[in-house]
Amino acid sequence: MNFSSDNAFGGSPEILAALTRANAGSAASYGADAITARLAGKLSDIFEREVAIFPVATGTAANSLALATLCPPHGGVVCHAESHIVTDECGAPEFFSGGARLIALETPDAKLTADAVRAKLAKFRGDVHQNLPTALSLTQSTELGTVYSCAQIAALSEIARGRNMRVHMDGARFANALVHLGCSPAEMTWKAGIDVLSFGATKNGALGAECVIFFDPALAGDFAYRRKRAGHLFSKMRFLSAQLEAYLANDLWLSNARKANELARMLADGLAALPGVTLGHPAEANAVFAWLPRDMCAHLRKAGATFYDWEQGSDGRVLVRLVCAFATPEEDVAKFIASAAA
Amino acid sequence: MNFSSDNAFGGSPEILAALTRANAGSAASYGADAITARLAGKLSDIFEREVAIFPVATGTAANSLALATLCPPHGGVVCHAESHIVTDECGAPEFFSGGARLIALETPDAKLTADAVRAKLAKFRGDVHQNLPTALSLTQSTELGTVYSCAQIAALSEIARGRNMRVHMDGARFANALVHLGCSPAEMTWKAGIDVLSFGATKNGALGAECVIFFDPALAGDFAYRRKRAGHLFSKMRFLSAQLEAYLANDLWLSNARKANELARMLADGLAALPGVTLGHPAEANAVFAWLPRDMCAHLRKAGATFYDWEQGSDGRVLVRLVCAFATPEEDVAKFIASAAA
Amino acid sequence: MNFSSDNAFGGSPEILAALTRANAGSAASYGADAITARLAGKLSDIFEREVAIFPVATGTAANSLALATLCPPHGGVVCHAESHIVTDECGAPEFFSGGARLIALETPDAKLTADAVRAKLAKFRGDVHQNLPTALSLTQSTELGTVYSCAQIAALSEIARGRNMRVHMDGARFANALVHLGCSPAEMTWKAGIDVLSFGATKNGALGAECVIFFDPALAGDFAYRRKRAGHLFSKMRFLSAQLEAYLANDLWLSNARKANELARMLADGLAALPGVTLGHPAEANAVFAWLPRDMCAHLRKAGATFYDWEQGSDGRVLVRLVCAFATPEEDVAKFIASAAA
Amino acid sequence: MNFSSDNAFGGSPEILAALTRANAGSAASYGADAITARLAGKLSDIFEREVAIFPVATGTAANSLALATLCPPHGGVVCHAESHIVTDECGAPEFFSGGARLIALETPDAKLTADAVRAKLAKFRGDVHQNLPTALSLTQSTELGTVYSCAQIAALSEIARGRNMRVHMDGARFANALVHLGCSPAEMTWKAGIDVLSFGATKNGALGAECVIFFDPALAGDFAYRRKRAGHLFSKMRFLSAQLEAYLANDLWLSNARKANELARMLADGLAALPGVTLGHPAEANAVFAWLPRDMCAHLRKAGATFYDWEQGSDGRVLVRLVCAFATPEEDVAKFIASAAA
Repeated sequence: MNFSSDNAFGGSPEILAALTRANAGSAASYGADAITARLAGKLSDIFEREVAIFPVATGTAANSLALATLCPPHGGVVCHAESHIVTDECGAPEFFSGGARLIALETPDAKLTADAVRAKLAKFRGDVHQNLPTALSLTQSTELGTVYSCAQIAALSEIARGRNMRVHMDGARFANALVHLGCSPAEMTWKAGIDVLSFGATKNGALGAECVIFFDPALAGDFAYRRKRAGHLFSKMRFLSAQLEAYLANDLWLSNARKANELARMLADGLAALPGVTLGHPAEANAVFAWLPRDMCAHLRKAGATFYDWEQGSDGRVLVRLVCAFATPEEDVAKFIASAAA
Repeated sequence: MNFSSDNAFGGSPEILAALTRANAGSAASYGADAITARLAGKLSDIFEREVAIFPVATGTAANSLALATLCPPHGGVVCHAESHIVTDECGAPEFFSGGARLIALETPDAKLTADAVRAKLAKFRGDVHQNLPTALSLTQSTELGTVYSCAQIAALSEIARGRNMRVHMDGARFANALVHLGCSPAEMTWKAGIDVLSFGATKNGALGAECVIFFDPALAGDFAYRRKRAGHLFSKMRFLSAQLEAYLANDLWLSNARKANELARMLADGLAALPGVTLGHPAEANAVFAWLPRDMCAHLRKAGATFYDWEQGSDGRVLVRLVCAFATPEEDVAKFIASAAA
Repeated sequence: MNFSSDNAFGGSPEILAALTRANAGSAASYGADAITARLAGKLSDIFEREVAIFPVATGTAANSLALATLCPPHGGVVCHAESHIVTDECGAPEFFSGGARLIALETPDAKLTADAVRAKLAKFRGDVHQNLPTALSLTQSTELGTVYSCAQIAALSEIARGRNMRVHMDGARFANALVHLGCSPAEMTWKAGIDVLSFGATKNGALGAECVIFFDPALAGDFAYRRKRAGHLFSKMRFLSAQLEAYLANDLWLSNARKANELARMLADGLAALPGVTLGHPAEANAVFAWLPRDMCAHLRKAGATFYDWEQGSDGRVLVRLVCAFATPEEDVAKFIASAAA
Repeated sequence: MNFSSDNAFGGSPEILAALTRANAGSAASYGADAITARLAGKLSDIFEREVAIFPVATGTAANSLALATLCPPHGGVVCHAESHIVTDECGAPEFFSGGARLIALETPDAKLTADAVRAKLAKFRGDVHQNLPTALSLTQSTELGTVYSCAQIAALSEIARGRNMRVHMDGARFANALVHLGCSPAEMTWKAGIDVLSFGATKNGALGAECVIFFDPALAGDFAYRRKRAGHLFSKMRFLSAQLEAYLANDLWLSNARKANELARMLADGLAALPGVTLGHPAEANAVFAWLPRDMCAHLRKAGATFYDWEQGSDGRVLVRLVCAFATPEEDVAKFIASAAA
């Protein structure tokens, strides 16, 4: 019963098979291969416009390279205090950008609100004594398992646009959000004002593959130099691209995400029905945050469950994080609920 | 006939199979998995001492993270002007180290000499006006296909040691050098004064996997933080470790390297026997540098050969680089020589 | 009636005279001169222990160089959200440290509390996913004109010490705090656990001179390299040292600070006595924060007063900042109060 | 007999007097004062076009901030191996630029030649594997006391322009070169293709003041942010500007430079006439490089002379550097020659 993270599981068989197919013969290095070219076409189709794509291997690389491209060293990135770039990347955005600052806001459910962003930005005068806010970063779905609506994204982007800021989306769990909303990839991104997307695949079926996507290729600027210089340009890039191609083929990405979300839904419903348990945040994607009595947690762990404590409550309960992946066994969900009920 | 690079070929079947094996079930993330633990043991065995290991995906990441650990921002890295860190990483060592300087020397065959290193170091006074030389970096085998003897490595390391400098080896083609020398991994590294090694696998059969190895684990310092912060800590690290484990199992790394070196040897001998052709550097590993008449180059390319021009000679000849990999078809070598002879 | 800042006024005549004296003849460059040597001795006397000193020209340089010495790129600096390093240096600490993070807390009166620091630190696990808190930075006197007691400093330092963190004091207004407390420089610094001090002089009578002081010279590490590399090593350093020497001679620094504090006291008392006016923070050093009715502000500005609005109240009042310097004319204070009363 | 450096002497009396004048009353901080405004006008007059100016306190700051503005982190600066940015700034250009690389050429007399620059640039392909040459930096007068003609500057700038590179001039000894050539400031800079100038005053009569001048203000980009962020924005900037204003008033800068050059000329002629002495480089500005017999050096030092050895010859002679400043006593020159002759 591993609910510790969606990166605890391996890759989809289709993606492994694609690696073997990509292995035949020789190919041009550093992204000049045929698979990478096909991937660019596929992503342009999916997003309904010509995009510039840059495969990388980790989400931290994707986020940091994207933000560094949008944000000069004296810049600032408005983001949520619970976002991965703030809490889990050991300062990678600062490293890649040459020391830009994360301007972190605390709003409910890990979702930025227009009011909070507007109020924060009002404190920046634009003189040389302060960092200059140059980017807004949204996480979709969020670190707390919630999802922005397209209208919410658009409202936040519009505020950014009004300050000449660019908008980044950390889509480590992009597919999970997308199937929740039921909208198109274009609607959830550039049509709502997103400039650059960290398109995640690793948590949803790849072995290690993400893709930075610029909706206006001109915005990519010196991204290619930054990627190389950071050691993120793979000589045998076809093996990144092959993962991503297989991820997108036959809507594998969507079916994987749907499965993970359904498991999370099942888990949330099952837990919420138990006495003494309440959900900490709406379970809209593939993560469930639930307040559990402390002894229930102990019991679950004794039964073999793995998960993280997120916050200690003052009422003897713990907010725990339970993450489902495409490969989480369905019986584990049932078993978890049963153990909790016991 | 692809002789453009050893990264033009894919991975060994054994390594692909290892990925499939590693894919089963769930595992701890970020290197806390069983495969990574086994790999550490295996590398300690191979190098005959307890080592600290850090798998990463690219050679540029391995080199830059290693050098940044040895070298403060005000430091300097003595290295060869033809080394990969100088010519092919777009300033990655400077990026990772916070702006340390590469102090590049020009000596024959891309091999540093004790005299040249000593003379250069004599110019550094150790005051605050100059960068402080804190590291020496050697490439084994070199970018020009040559190999340092263990005695040469030891002599250079000793000079470094006398100045309180640490020694790094860029071993992107470590196995190719090792089988050429016929010595042990320990002899070619820490017994000869190497502190940290970029142990390459990508060019010799992996899809994308390298390993930074500190022979004194205490020297690793904040490497783990640096790797994370640079986006090079893989969540599903088992897939890097599985590649490396399979690479080392049954001496695959050595047999792959032997094969590549033999092909290069065959190619060098075949070309050197042709009128108008001379070797530019001793072909000791898996790369051949040969001066070919310009029309011979044109003819070869028309026949389908891919390779890089390295230098334009004044005598109507071109120095070309021809790299063999473990997967280079032997018949391509024969065909290349025949085409050249025609 | 210039109450905009204590840097709006020039230098003490004694300091200008010292520049003229220092100008005679030739001298060794880059700090090897006699004046700098004497200054080191004088500061060791004042702080009652052998200190390592590094004159620089600006407070931002002093703070950033000091913090970068204490804090690796993956480190974090616990500090107040209102501190100068957070609000007024455009990310200089991030620039100098290679991207370390400021961990900013919001507590009353711009003074960190032991509880808040302890609670924040409890959220850091020490793994590679988070920045590692390695330094604590206190501002004395604070940006809101308040002063830590020696006991408060000691309590905060002790928490830091318990986490292997080092403690920095931003003493841009060190003298103002010192004369307020009436303690010794040693008591307010190393005896209370401070490791490194940005000793300010510019705001209190120098033209442009600060001094970074390490109470344990071994902690200075590579500070000298950092200073040079950042362009803050003056070739004619005697002119910085001469300012500082004159600043300390005959307790000029203390009498200047006393004068500024007294003016602020006078101003605070005068304003607080007016109907509709309340102080926003205790006026313990040379700055007064007062809530004034909006039309009173307008009237004061029409009368020629210069000062900054700090915050817009919801009750039609404005929190204004009024800073007194050693050279603020006493009649300006009286005139300001009279204008406010009118 | 101090010939160690032109920074061994203090400031011109006119400049000290200007500080006292600037000290009266209060003034706006951070460069919003009247003196800085006047200085901008004066420099625009002198350079015969509207320029953007940024006073800073050290030459290293001026050079590094200017280069960082022209050069992205993945960029490269073509420059001479003997230039100050290469040999004497401890990697400051790398620090400020985020790790850009200095591409250093070795040509006679510390002067770049068009052929050498062209040949070097031909090695850069413009792909992501190499740093991208984005700036050319010339030193006028050079570190070896020589001076580029305006035609030489123009020829080098034109090569740079052809590669979309910008051109920087390190004018730490700008005035010394100018009076040697007898041309106008405009002719030696923007009319010859210079984009940005580090205009030096410290070595020629200021206490510590330089000015970065952009001939096209639009090129200054985010310079103001960079200066602030690096701790080089002075709160009491009027004291930098006052130095520079007095430096330019009544052509003090030119008369100081003329005096220093004349002393150097005298010294060069006197030494060159001695048996066993030859000049190492043409003495065109205020520095003399001369090969002296080793015992002559010892004798001179015993007589009280201070100077640096630059290079040890194989013929028992030493290349010494002798720098004259505006304030070097003329009798010291005579005494030095007499001692050498003895």
